[in-house]
Amino acid sequence: MTEGEKPLKVAVLGCGVVGSQVVRLIHEQADDLAARVGAPVELAGVAVRRLDAPRDIDVPADLLTTDAAGLVARDDVDVVVEVIGGIEPARSLILSALENGASVVTANKALLAEDGPTLYEAAEKAGRDLYYEAAVAGAIPIVRPLRESLAGDKVTRVLGIVNGTTNFILDKMDAQGSGFEDALEEAQALGYAEADPTADVEGFDAAAKAAILASLAFHSRVTAADVHREGISDVTAADVRSAADRGTVVKLLAIAELRESESGEEAVSVRVHPAMIPRSHPLASVREAFNAVFVESEAAGQLMFYGPGAGGAPTASAVLGDLVTVARNHRQGTRGVGESAYADRAVLPMGETPTRYHVAIDVDDRAGVLAAVANAFAKHDVSIQTVRQEGRGDDAQLVVVSHEATDARLAATVEELRGMDIVRDVTSVMRVEGTDE
Amino acid sequence: MTEGEKPLKVAVLGCGVVGSQVVRLIHEQADDLAARVGAPVELAGVAVRRLDAPRDIDVPADLLTTDAAGLVARDDVDVVVEVIGGIEPARSLILSALENGASVVTANKALLAEDGPTLYEAAEKAGRDLYYEAAVAGAIPIVRPLRESLAGDKVTRVLGIVNGTTNFILDKMDAQGSGFEDALEEAQALGYAEADPTADVEGFDAAAKAAILASLAFHSRVTAADVHREGISDVTAADVRSAADRGTVVKLLAIAELRESESGEEAVSVRVHPAMIPRSHPLASVREAFNAVFVESEAAGQLMFYGPGAGGAPTASAVLGDLVTVARNHRQGTRGVGESAYADRAVLPMGETPTRYHVAIDVDDRAGVLAAVANAFAKHDVSIQTVRQEGRGDDAQLVVVSHEATDARLAATVEELRGMDIVRDVTSVMRVEGTDE
Repeated sequence: MTEGEKPLKVAVLGCGVVGSQVVRLIHEQADDLAARVGAPVELAGVAVRRLDAPRDIDVPADLLTTDAAGLVARDDVDVVVEVIGGIEPARSLILSALENGASVVTANKALLAEDGPTLYEAAEKAGRDLYYEAAVAGAIPIVRPLRESLAGDKVTRVLGIVNGTTNFILDKMDAQGSGFEDALEEAQALGYAEADPTADVEGFDAAAKAAILASLAFHSRVTAADVHREGISDVTAADVRSAADRGTVVKLLAIAELRESESGEEAVSVRVHPAMIPRSHPLASVREAFNAVFVESEAAGQLMFYGPGAGGAPTASAVLGDLVTVARNHRQGTRGVGESAYADRAVLPMGETPTRYHVAIDVDDRAGVLAAVANAFAKHDVSIQTVRQEGRGDDAQLVVVSHEATDARLAATVEELRGMDIVRDVTSVMRVEGTDE
Repeated sequence: MTEGEKPLKVAVLGCGVVGSQVVRLIHEQADDLAARVGAPVELAGVAVRRLDAPRDIDVPADLLTTDAAGLVARDDVDVVVEVIGGIEPARSLILSALENGASVVTANKALLAEDGPTLYEAAEKAGRDLYYEAAVAGAIPIVRPLRESLAGDKVTRVLGIVNGTTNFILDKMDAQGSGFEDALEEAQALGYAEADPTADVEGFDAAAKAAILASLAFHSRVTAADVHREGISDVTAADVRSAADRGTVVKLLAIAELRESESGEEAVSVRVHPAMIPRSHPLASVREAFNAVFVESEAAGQLMFYGPGAGGAPTASAVLGDLVTVARNHRQGTRGVGESAYADRAVLPMGETPTRYHVAIDVDDRAGVLAAVANAFAKHDVSIQTVRQEGRGDDAQLVVVSHEATDARLAATVEELRGMDIVRDVTSVMRVEGTDE
């Protein structure tokens, strides 16, 4: 069917965990790719840092090059796949590829979250595609559903478990009762966390994905700098136990939602933080290093997309899916959906984004304690939804779940509580998500 | 941005539960649709059976018509949305629309499963789009992920809960211990099941969706007639209890998977039947009338797509998503992915598709019983994976889970068992899915 068609030439930048799987799939699925694209898909070259580095697959020597800039400048390259990661040289190479008339597929969440609009504008100007399904939640189709499937609907909220390392750690803490440090060590031993886990556990990786999801969901420009970010290194075994006691589980969530600003406009709240969600919530059952993205929209209601969020082959699957679309478009001289930022909504500062809180307080077991604690919340204008008294004597505890309150008001309340005679300790303060007020 | 652009004219065929929501969203989301399509989207007309029928929304009288054929024949119609359902007149109207140069969005699973290729060929010939996300699993994006996101991967299996009525009934049987008839009555009372529930409970609806999923996943033509179909009306409270006792749950599954045929070719097995799946499987937690589709592929691994599988607004969300893509393509004179049937794989007859079975047998409580039962399985060449003895005396029961066996061999084994002195009754025979052998 596709014999005689001019082959589509693909340059792959990077041949690490993901790149090597992309190269493997381009070879192994050659017949299927040809049938789906309408022309054979061939490698033009693979740019690597060192020609003699050990790699997972055999790449023909004549395809390997250390001259990535030279590769993307070649006239015969139709599509460039960028899987180097990081800001530079990835950005320059993508811009150069687009200027040269190539279409681009990238998995580079950091770059898109920092400087996506520069790239999107370059693609628009060149009349080429820039696709990036692999940048968020690995193999899980979420960019395309947000960009296309939900294009006739109004998305109101996205809650994502988009970092496998932190989900693995929190899942172990929940299942085994272990502390953060022990769970992190286990994740490192099993290869789920890096030696320097900062990017994962402090939420930087999730924040980049949150920015991309918010941009897509709300047709506005949102960058990593817009994202309020809290990691999981302060989550304690006591927090996780307290969550479990009330039928919830702690997850690191990337949240993007429409909120009304103080001036009454629709604005975007975008944040990454640990939160307690009910065990009955579809996200609660996402175990180990899996990812999932939960989407709420006006007409569709609640959707969830679940799967492996990282790894060479899963990420390569997402890259190849984009490659097929981009290659088809390139052949036909058309392009798919580009950046959609027409709504141009403002990002709401975290100080104007009230959330609900769970607060566990060790108290003296005597009359009037509940009233005193309730007064402390009232004094700082934090409205209480539920309060539960647990244990007796030295184990007496109050567990308060608030209505929505700003961080500032909540922090003042906690300070007030800590200064009270009847309060022995505030043992857990954590946001609550995934419930209707 | 889109001022001055020639409007895209949309004809909607049918103004029932789904059609009225499509009309509502086209009105309410007009600004967003215009920004996303690049031109205003306007209704050309709405074809209904009776002008004076009560409907959920107000449609301007000058848009309503009973002449659907006349509406699709109009020169100014760019996109036709078909939400009438059934085979005729839907098929003739879609064919006529394509011939007249319109692009088509449909939610018509029955028609696509019966005669899809006729429609796909007409779209190909006309150079127009025929999109149908809403035909499978309502609001859940699954057609687009299979057609596009996974286009660079090799899908090996699709397991879907694609009928909300049967999932609601089975969920009630599981949660309340009720029998099929009681759970069906509850579903009918709550509007989840129709007065004549045959299409749902006997698996016809799921079979149509299974055919569509199999066609997409395996790039082959599969029709409803190819689907082996068993409903849930024979599922008993005892089956559900027996499933629960071993940590599983009964679901009606639409299954499409690659199997090796007897001649060693890759063939497609496509079937709908109740099956026990482990509670730890992602599909097990799909409650009430929700749908979910679980996809396994070589590179991506395991993905799941979850959400509302029916209802006016959710289905309309999927229709509108297609409408945006199709309208963009129509404006630009391009088309998206058409039928992909290049792999042309054969459908494997059910007689050549071995599956695993769970068999619960009430037996006499005496020595040698287990050996005798094991002999019955061996005699018919059904290999046993596990056998568990439960209860004592009059409650003695053996629960056998087999390795893969054909229906014929399993049926012969059950007949053999029923004829044995030591067997008081075979209380449950059901397939097992979602586990690795």
